[in-house]
Amino acid sequence: MYAKQLKIQLYPKQKYIIYYYTMYSVGIVGAVGAVGSEIIDVLAKRNFPIRQLVLYSSGKSVEQQVYVENDFYGKIALELFTYETACTLDIVFIAVGNDFSNEWCKKLATDGVLVIDNSSAFRYDNTVPLVIPEININTTVGHKLIANPNCTTAIALMALYPIHKKYKLKKVIVSTYQAASGAGVAGVNELKDGMKCIVGNEPVSNKVFVHPLPYNIIPHIDAFMPNAYTKEEMKVVWEMKKILNDDTIKISCTAVRIPVLRAHSEAITIETEHEINASDVRELLRHSEGIDVSDDPTNNLYPMPLTASNKWNVEVGRIRENDVFGQHGLDLFVSGDQLLRGAALNAVLIAEQMCSTLTK
Amino acid sequence: MYAKQLKIQLYPKQKYIIYYYTMYSVGIVGAVGAVGSEIIDVLAKRNFPIRQLVLYSSGKSVEQQVYVENDFYGKIALELFTYETACTLDIVFIAVGNDFSNEWCKKLATDGVLVIDNSSAFRYDNTVPLVIPEININTTVGHKLIANPNCTTAIALMALYPIHKKYKLKKVIVSTYQAASGAGVAGVNELKDGMKCIVGNEPVSNKVFVHPLPYNIIPHIDAFMPNAYTKEEMKVVWEMKKILNDDTIKISCTAVRIPVLRAHSEAITIETEHEINASDVRELLRHSEGIDVSDDPTNNLYPMPLTASNKWNVEVGRIRENDVFGQHGLDLFVSGDQLLRGAALNAVLIAEQMCSTLTK
Repeated sequence: MYAKQLKIQLYPKQKYIIYYYTMYSVGIVGAVGAVGSEIIDVLAKRNFPIRQLVLYSSGKSVEQQVYVENDFYGKIALELFTYETACTLDIVFIAVGNDFSNEWCKKLATDGVLVIDNSSAFRYDNTVPLVIPEININTTVGHKLIANPNCTTAIALMALYPIHKKYKLKKVIVSTYQAASGAGVAGVNELKDGMKCIVGNEPVSNKVFVHPLPYNIIPHIDAFMPNAYTKEEMKVVWEMKKILNDDTIKISCTAVRIPVLRAHSEAITIETEHEINASDVRELLRHSEGIDVSDDPTNNLYPMPLTASNKWNVEVGRIRENDVFGQHGLDLFVSGDQLLRGAALNAVLIAEQMCSTLTK
Repeated sequence: MYAKQLKIQLYPKQKYIIYYYTMYSVGIVGAVGAVGSEIIDVLAKRNFPIRQLVLYSSGKSVEQQVYVENDFYGKIALELFTYETACTLDIVFIAVGNDFSNEWCKKLATDGVLVIDNSSAFRYDNTVPLVIPEININTTVGHKLIANPNCTTAIALMALYPIHKKYKLKKVIVSTYQAASGAGVAGVNELKDGMKCIVGNEPVSNKVFVHPLPYNIIPHIDAFMPNAYTKEEMKVVWEMKKILNDDTIKISCTAVRIPVLRAHSEAITIETEHEINASDVRELLRHSEGIDVSDDPTNNLYPMPLTASNKWNVEVGRIRENDVFGQHGLDLFVSGDQLLRGAALNAVLIAEQMCSTLTK
């Protein structure tokens, strides 16, 4: 047995001190992917109590004997996923596609492994909690399989939840500005390669994105649904309602891929049940967890990918009263690292809270 | 005297045939700027009846004896602006800053010159018509000074006006994705140079934009106003109301600069007085002037800067019924060449209609 007290500094507004009474064996499926590699990094930076770290990857990386180098954990060889090894672990983070998750998540959870799944396979399953720890960690009690939300949803809700709690959201209209890394390492590489081609006066090709992304934007992320929204847009609608546990909120989203490497931004317009004003909301958000209020126009401070990338907190700014909903309306702009807040950090925070709660 | 019949092909949905009974002397102020050079090009492509073309530019270009080369007009030397030469012209297009327009527009108009001003100097002057020819050319009767609208406004209204006429707009929420060329040639160069630096692993500098634009987005265009909106955002609000001649519409805008060279895109959510549905609106817009409906998700067709750049028509797509406003709500996405529809083309269309009307 082992006790640890963890880093208030790393997450400044965190109101609790975490005591762990045990060390965990942890597996990561998709360890060299955009999200998987961030999970390793966040586990290390948050000093998560690990006694064994198993990194699973696809056959190709394993055959090529790829190693993961981490300042904290050293050099770890990648392994092929097997149920036999995975079901012996305490915690498994899964950051690959829905097919894998559909096949393995429930089996592992049934066998007592805490599974935190980054795919959308179980997000809309009523028996599986969909969790942002700052909002609804309470829904995890008695569960071993937890779904991690869509990155766009998670980033928006960091700003919207405190507002919802105080003013009650009635309508939410979101337009997104989503980075290439939302499509993984391959998306980042395609954008970088494309920009190189443009600078070198060579033709740009595309495979990851439906159209070339350099100097372009694409209002098409994930598949189109029968209602003419994309699945990415509907994820925001479905997941906001599930996480806030409120089906009455009216939500609409337009999801757009833009030529940015990292951090998703969102222009958000809301209508609230109670009267709302910008200065009170600024104050409210300044005291909320996981948020940096960046809203000082005179000093050219507002959320941007440039400043929000590689940051744990979501930047919120451009908070202003809109005319559309009278004294019940507000416009705001958020920018957050979708690989961290929208994926890896959120997943690790879930594990952290569940482990510390379970063993406290 | 001279008669001409003009090109149905160039503007396919144009319902009229233009007869000109005279040839005009035309001046362009800011002829080597991003908008000015497009005005020359549009005048040529639309075969505007010109007997004399005078290109005004700043002292620097004139000193350097810069020539403008155009397939249609040949080689034209730049001249310094003087009131004496300009007041002898029939039409002057002005595409420089507000200061110049404030100094010269009203004087020239008083002297009988038809002045089409691309700055924002007179857009909110009740005595000056703010015109999109397809919408409110009727307001130009008896006027010699005409204001050309903000590019974001013009692009949005091409799609919104036919909807407003049939369904009456109550609320409009706009989030923009604005190209670097909205900040002129200098903006384009700064983005291109910045991308070169990134590809070459060199540091990126910025002067035109408040922050570096490559791989970043900046929710700050034009100055901040006391209500925390930017002037660019308020231009959309003020100009939509003026052009639609309806102060009752509630409008909100978030304007964001993105790393795209050309064409502004906009995610738009509307509420209408009358019940609305996507398929009727698609049909309505297919028969509206100045619009290309690009809304075929199964073939990955939707508005994008890649396809909308250098095009006269505005692309409209992603038309879908939103849940936020029940049967009175719609989401759509537009992409339009802001140098053409948002500036040069609009200006030339104003001149075309006013000249043909005046002489018919």
